[in-house]
Amino acid sequence: MNAYTQDCICLLGDSLTQGGWEPHGFAQRLSYVYARKLDVINRGLSGYNTEWAIPVFEQFFAKSKDQEHLPKVQLLTIWFGANDACIPPSPQHVPLPTFSANLSKLINLVKSPDSPYHSPSTRVILITPPPVNTYQRGADLATRNPPLDLDRKFEVTQQYAEAVKEVGAKEGVPVVDIWSSIWEAAGKVERDLSRYLNDGLHLNAEGYTFVYDGLLKTISESYPEIHPDNLEFVFAPWADVANAADRSQALRKRDAFLRK
Amino acid sequence: MNAYTQDCICLLGDSLTQGGWEPHGFAQRLSYVYARKLDVINRGLSGYNTEWAIPVFEQFFAKSKDQEHLPKVQLLTIWFGANDACIPPSPQHVPLPTFSANLSKLINLVKSPDSPYHSPSTRVILITPPPVNTYQRGADLATRNPPLDLDRKFEVTQQYAEAVKEVGAKEGVPVVDIWSSIWEAAGKVERDLSRYLNDGLHLNAEGYTFVYDGLLKTISESYPEIHPDNLEFVFAPWADVANAADRSQALRKRDAFLRK
Repeated sequence: MNAYTQDCICLLGDSLTQGGWEPHGFAQRLSYVYARKLDVINRGLSGYNTEWAIPVFEQFFAKSKDQEHLPKVQLLTIWFGANDACIPPSPQHVPLPTFSANLSKLINLVKSPDSPYHSPSTRVILITPPPVNTYQRGADLATRNPPLDLDRKFEVTQQYAEAVKEVGAKEGVPVVDIWSSIWEAAGKVERDLSRYLNDGLHLNAEGYTFVYDGLLKTISESYPEIHPDNLEFVFAPWADVANAADRSQALRKRDAFLRK
Repeated sequence: MNAYTQDCICLLGDSLTQGGWEPHGFAQRLSYVYARKLDVINRGLSGYNTEWAIPVFEQFFAKSKDQEHLPKVQLLTIWFGANDACIPPSPQHVPLPTFSANLSKLINLVKSPDSPYHSPSTRVILITPPPVNTYQRGADLATRNPPLDLDRKFEVTQQYAEAVKEVGAKEGVPVVDIWSSIWEAAGKVERDLSRYLNDGLHLNAEGYTFVYDGLLKTISESYPEIHPDNLEFVFAPWADVANAADRSQALRKRDAFLRK
């Protein structure tokens, strides 16, 4: 792929991000609305926490000196907390202050002019983890062989979601707070979270709607220039090509940011 | 995105490819099974024919001299014919011999050592256009304002599908013949193609199953080394990280082609 055709959106996170490729997942839906405008690159890693995500990020995100050769990352979503919030002694557990510091570090790897990964074109959005339904999760773990103890607590994941919002406020990065929107949609009844969660932890298609809708709303409000409605097809709509006096001119790739 | 993390699959085609991002579309399903192994880049352009695709390809596909900086394209699918087969005087119409020559040209832009776009890492698969249901298509066009005449014929699209197979044989490129598989699944009854087509022309979720299944089968047979079952996660499964004596070692990115 050429560096100068379509830029991209990068989704960084855990299994909730990796599962975004499910039908009606947020990666699938973003790909659909951004088709011919921005590519969607999914760097969701099931089971990962922020501690493990930092070295991963430093390996997949291009250093500033290499960025000119590569498609620009116009938007980076950072979505962690679901695994960081595991209860000790889980190896996935990351203490709350470290979780917050790790999120700040990820943001500043991109945004700080002193970082070797500094990417001036990259907008960042944080996403909170969804609320955990410990009834569903506990029942699921009990069916494993051997049965497993409950590994997450409702109130703990809530604290990690709050921490994401605090990091966003501190770093000046917008936050899609799906913890709150899903909790409210469930009438603040933990058992009723099953409407949006497959297994007490992972979102179903209805759950992903909060992520997708929240992202599009946040893009509208904070980064309207990259809302899909404000971007142009890089290669012209076919009827424009068909009707052009000079088709080879009409077929020249365009800057998605330059609307006619 | 770094050049040395995940390579990619590139889907080149018309609206049938662009629509691959629908839920259960073939781009969505490929993205899901290739997650953490290969990225999927969709260059489907609604309404385009092979004549317009050539200059587009020459703008988005990296020239050989630039490829070292960019993720490698491990697989390129080329899927045209649905618009080339429009009946004259449609501006989308491409005469059958020109259609065949254009497909050969696209293949050789990648495969010929003399091409400036020569990409030794890129495997190619051709896909035939699906059969047209002129009853559905005609009814759809009649509802437009103003009503439109039928723009495609069953037998003509069938000829373009045959031409794709001939080009594949001539160029030594495997072909996913969805024309035949869908026609057979419909019991060779044109009206019954509505099981697989939304509007007589575009595939529904069931129709895309032939594309996805056909691609995975062809990959198994012709390019087994890039079948998802034969590729490794670039970043290790979380339990391998959690259990590693040296986690920073376990978090080093790997070559997707090197299975343990």
